[in-house]
Amino acid sequence: MVGVAVIGAGYWGPNLVRNIQATPQLRLISLCDLDLSRAQAVLGRYSTVRATSSLQEVLADPEVDAVAVATPAATHLEVALAAIEAGKHVLVEKPLAASHADGLKLVGAAEERGLVLMLDHTFCYTPEVQRLRRLVHDGELGELQYVDSVRINLGLVQPDIDVLWDLAPHDLSILDAILPPGVRPVAVAAHGSDPAALGRACVAYLSAQLSNGAIAHAHLNWLSPTKIRTTIVGGSRRTAVWNDLDRTMPLAIYDRGVDWPDGQDRRVSYRIGDMVAPALPVGEALRAVMAEFAAAIIEGRPALTDGRSGLRVLAQLEAASASLATGGVFVPVANGAMDGGAA
Amino acid sequence: MVGVAVIGAGYWGPNLVRNIQATPQLRLISLCDLDLSRAQAVLGRYSTVRATSSLQEVLADPEVDAVAVATPAATHLEVALAAIEAGKHVLVEKPLAASHADGLKLVGAAEERGLVLMLDHTFCYTPEVQRLRRLVHDGELGELQYVDSVRINLGLVQPDIDVLWDLAPHDLSILDAILPPGVRPVAVAAHGSDPAALGRACVAYLSAQLSNGAIAHAHLNWLSPTKIRTTIVGGSRRTAVWNDLDRTMPLAIYDRGVDWPDGQDRRVSYRIGDMVAPALPVGEALRAVMAEFAAAIIEGRPALTDGRSGLRVLAQLEAASASLATGGVFVPVANGAMDGGAA
Amino acid sequence: MVGVAVIGAGYWGPNLVRNIQATPQLRLISLCDLDLSRAQAVLGRYSTVRATSSLQEVLADPEVDAVAVATPAATHLEVALAAIEAGKHVLVEKPLAASHADGLKLVGAAEERGLVLMLDHTFCYTPEVQRLRRLVHDGELGELQYVDSVRINLGLVQPDIDVLWDLAPHDLSILDAILPPGVRPVAVAAHGSDPAALGRACVAYLSAQLSNGAIAHAHLNWLSPTKIRTTIVGGSRRTAVWNDLDRTMPLAIYDRGVDWPDGQDRRVSYRIGDMVAPALPVGEALRAVMAEFAAAIIEGRPALTDGRSGLRVLAQLEAASASLATGGVFVPVANGAMDGGAA
Amino acid sequence: MVGVAVIGAGYWGPNLVRNIQATPQLRLISLCDLDLSRAQAVLGRYSTVRATSSLQEVLADPEVDAVAVATPAATHLEVALAAIEAGKHVLVEKPLAASHADGLKLVGAAEERGLVLMLDHTFCYTPEVQRLRRLVHDGELGELQYVDSVRINLGLVQPDIDVLWDLAPHDLSILDAILPPGVRPVAVAAHGSDPAALGRACVAYLSAQLSNGAIAHAHLNWLSPTKIRTTIVGGSRRTAVWNDLDRTMPLAIYDRGVDWPDGQDRRVSYRIGDMVAPALPVGEALRAVMAEFAAAIIEGRPALTDGRSGLRVLAQLEAASASLATGGVFVPVANGAMDGGAA
Repeated sequence: MVGVAVIGAGYWGPNLVRNIQATPQLRLISLCDLDLSRAQAVLGRYSTVRATSSLQEVLADPEVDAVAVATPAATHLEVALAAIEAGKHVLVEKPLAASHADGLKLVGAAEERGLVLMLDHTFCYTPEVQRLRRLVHDGELGELQYVDSVRINLGLVQPDIDVLWDLAPHDLSILDAILPPGVRPVAVAAHGSDPAALGRACVAYLSAQLSNGAIAHAHLNWLSPTKIRTTIVGGSRRTAVWNDLDRTMPLAIYDRGVDWPDGQDRRVSYRIGDMVAPALPVGEALRAVMAEFAAAIIEGRPALTDGRSGLRVLAQLEAASASLATGGVFVPVANGAMDGGAA
Repeated sequence: MVGVAVIGAGYWGPNLVRNIQATPQLRLISLCDLDLSRAQAVLGRYSTVRATSSLQEVLADPEVDAVAVATPAATHLEVALAAIEAGKHVLVEKPLAASHADGLKLVGAAEERGLVLMLDHTFCYTPEVQRLRRLVHDGELGELQYVDSVRINLGLVQPDIDVLWDLAPHDLSILDAILPPGVRPVAVAAHGSDPAALGRACVAYLSAQLSNGAIAHAHLNWLSPTKIRTTIVGGSRRTAVWNDLDRTMPLAIYDRGVDWPDGQDRRVSYRIGDMVAPALPVGEALRAVMAEFAAAIIEGRPALTDGRSGLRVLAQLEAASASLATGGVFVPVANGAMDGGAA
Repeated sequence: MVGVAVIGAGYWGPNLVRNIQATPQLRLISLCDLDLSRAQAVLGRYSTVRATSSLQEVLADPEVDAVAVATPAATHLEVALAAIEAGKHVLVEKPLAASHADGLKLVGAAEERGLVLMLDHTFCYTPEVQRLRRLVHDGELGELQYVDSVRINLGLVQPDIDVLWDLAPHDLSILDAILPPGVRPVAVAAHGSDPAALGRACVAYLSAQLSNGAIAHAHLNWLSPTKIRTTIVGGSRRTAVWNDLDRTMPLAIYDRGVDWPDGQDRRVSYRIGDMVAPALPVGEALRAVMAEFAAAIIEGRPALTDGRSGLRVLAQLEAASASLATGGVFVPVANGAMDGGAA
Repeated sequence: MVGVAVIGAGYWGPNLVRNIQATPQLRLISLCDLDLSRAQAVLGRYSTVRATSSLQEVLADPEVDAVAVATPAATHLEVALAAIEAGKHVLVEKPLAASHADGLKLVGAAEERGLVLMLDHTFCYTPEVQRLRRLVHDGELGELQYVDSVRINLGLVQPDIDVLWDLAPHDLSILDAILPPGVRPVAVAAHGSDPAALGRACVAYLSAQLSNGAIAHAHLNWLSPTKIRTTIVGGSRRTAVWNDLDRTMPLAIYDRGVDWPDGQDRRVSYRIGDMVAPALPVGEALRAVMAEFAAAIIEGRPALTDGRSGLRVLAQLEAASASLATGGVFVPVANGAMDGGAA
């Protein structure tokens, strides 16, 4: 069994605690927060798990094989690097780090030591993204034509980052998971607005040019009174629509499209076929994250959402920020030597 | 009573025919199409209205006081100018003309002769846009923060124009109708894609910087298997969401938003109040278009959606096309001497 | 071509006028209403169709081969019988007549003269009911287990009939159309309420015992602020859900059910498979009604919704009324010698 | 602090365990199940709470002031009575007992000893039911005209009870909570069907005549492929619609209705006003159940959903069963001397 400590008892920490406890291959050893009382409150009155405010203590604990880091992004480099240097496997909240350069340091350090460095890209472990990935990879959708995401809601204004860095990692990691082999975002543009004068963009639109000529786009918004989480994956044969808030029919696959002959007149015709909403397995995605973390450690292999996937997301976020700062042109995505592929 | 002829018996013509016939102040005289049999088919077997294939005949008819032009956009200049020169009032389908320069000619010609030149910006005459306009103008929404539109569907690939020129006129004219006095789009950017290799963008995203610092954005798409028509108008006090496909609750006004004090810490708080879906009058928007056309002619005044509103939309479309062609930067919107304001 | 006159220019008459005019095999001769100005208003200023207030005149007109009766139900016997006796084919609004006995007279008179007597059970001509019928008849749903309808809305309080007689004909005629051969309602019960003291039930619940042991139920309501029109057809293999107000996905077929072995323990298991929303042809159901009326006349055969289907609906309505009056027990449905089957 | 033991570690037990642990005024002492390993599994590997298979041990434990009973309904009498006789306060899952007679014994025993006997009618503690209750009691809806519930889903076939006894307690307890003072169900009728030959009704319709002339109706169904949980509360002034599956707008209040004058002609008019979806507090209803249980014990007062509310529900269930067995007539609801009112 893999001994795990959770670092950070804030917004996401309790979810990590709950799901680690429910994962047979993991054993929760301790929960660490600078504010000890917050860690104690998360564990509650009935727990045998240790609360602590000392990261050093956690990292020195031989029972702790791995840590799950749920601290603010600005501290990821310091906390995760210390854990790696202490020989711990690391699961880290998105984004991997505050910059691509910092992320590179983490990936390098983990690979050097042969440790698992995994991103908690939770959405990638939903049955919907797993199915979308299969639909794209198996050619069921035909050629990928466009990906359109809307992720808007009220009430998530972050103190130190803009809406792009807060929400786009979800969409970019989902995109990373479902793109067909060899297809990558090559340039990213972003438009945004800070209409409430909060000092950072609260409404943003991100466009990514994909290497196959398709476009991906995301609408990210902290000011919307209604919550919308929809991703459309358009293909030449079929198009899938994922509505994450629809509990009864989250994924719908439409056998519809535009057909056109190669002949002279290029008259377009439309195909309106059935829609299928596949039955999907139920279960909390974070449970699957934990199972993958445990399996990667035990099997000594990279996780599905490994450090490099986190680097790819960071490179796209930095391109988006650069575009936002310079009027919305497409900015090439850095493609470091370390950038492999999700395959 | 105002005698009217309809020019063009294609996709939209039958709707004009039906609604003119139902408008007491108008009298339908004739329906003109190059293809006479198409005009006859639209009128049907029971009609007393004249079908003709001769525009000259229509323009020479003294019973015809006004024409409604529903021919392809590329012909608007020629057809509408001929009508104006024949002393007819003109209602023209969107867009006003194939270019801003052509549009200017039409507006100049009509103003010179004191004739009504009106755009059939149908959506502006829906009860929803009328209410949105009032909500914005009366300050019910507070400061305008963002406007987000989605207008996607399968099956409308046009032979000669891209998705921007086909669909964005709807969103730009709605924006023109609801913006508060003095607020205007100052620059427009567009990203697009032609993943199906149709020779023109089938998926496009348009962003407009407004003069008050807010952003407007539209997602326009011919390839989507599902039809979505939603416009969110975000304000500092309230936000309105218009779902044009929701027959039972098309407009919802949320008393929600982000509040923040002017003090030191700038901690953001959220306000989650009730949602109100106002009861709206029912009725076909095109009926209201016809009533406004008749009233403008009879009262000798500009229509709510006059030629200048059509010019403003054209200027924004041209900026969008220029942006699309040059990588997505924001392109300033031409602001000619003739550009007044919807007020 | 079949010459047709419409009798009654009230709520439904204009729809008949419009759809008859659009049907190639029919020719609209006249529109008759006791209030001549109402008939003239329905036809409008541009029509060549004759308006009249004289039923005698219509029935004496040799150009008139058939009439469509859209007068109040209480007058159906008199109007339709006169038409039949004048040798006209008859299309009649639901219900066939004010009582089963009256209906029998009409069916007898029409059959005697070899004339078409058809019910305008419009819903039976929707693509959804056509598909439901096929799904049931072809065994795609397995054994029929239950049919549940909800038909509620605000604003239809009728002056002379209760909500059962107003709305249940829709559900009973749909049921008549989709039931498998040999399965019939054998007894009907109804509970109702007149909470607004209008003098007749405004809220009613109808249950029908089917001859195969299944149950059909309808919720009928004039007081609901929201409009709901949903029919669930539950089978042992699949279940279909028809939401008449959902324009994008009106019919959904669920591959779900309860399975149980024949063994000792009878443990129930569940089958959760995909959902399919079939692509359906588009088009107005009333257009198909007219095509069927024309075809039945031309081919000299009974219409799909012939007089006997109207009789079956009347027998069930009378059983429902009897149940409502006597505390809600199941009342057997009259099964006259004339009662055939829809097969 | 009130020491609590949970009896029964099956379907609902884990929810009780979790919510008792999260309630400051309660202290979870032990979890008891005949199957010790099931109790241990529910508590998990990190808990300090005691697992046991001995009810005697629990009832003899002086630390245990109260028990929460989540065993099958058939055992409620025995388990709850033993607890009461051991001087423990009791929270019991619905239904109170297997029969009204058994329920009376429990209520009598608890009242005799001055102990709290509370029903876990969880839905009554949702913000929606709390608001509905206030809307009815404060007259916001006007005169109550009808209550319509739909509670259908796949996958809940119970081994020993029919769908009425399984699901109707929810609707009847909600009704009990929201009815205005003095209004009660006086007679209940039920129609049902066992089309899958499971040996008990899987589809049932329950109608209740209320003492003010209104009707309440519930559709209960184990065979539906789609989950629906909707309650409409119709009033003369406004009507509220509660959709328990709509996370963004669970409660909608429509300012719509039918008005009619007292004059001669009794012409009905319609009022179509705005719809308001009130902002509601968030939170798990079971948390509020626990808070009420703790408060009732500490303050020595009956709980909102006390034993008598459970008795009223049982009386209605027994009337429904009697109606189901005898053809669907309305059966009077037993109104024992003990039957007070929810006030």
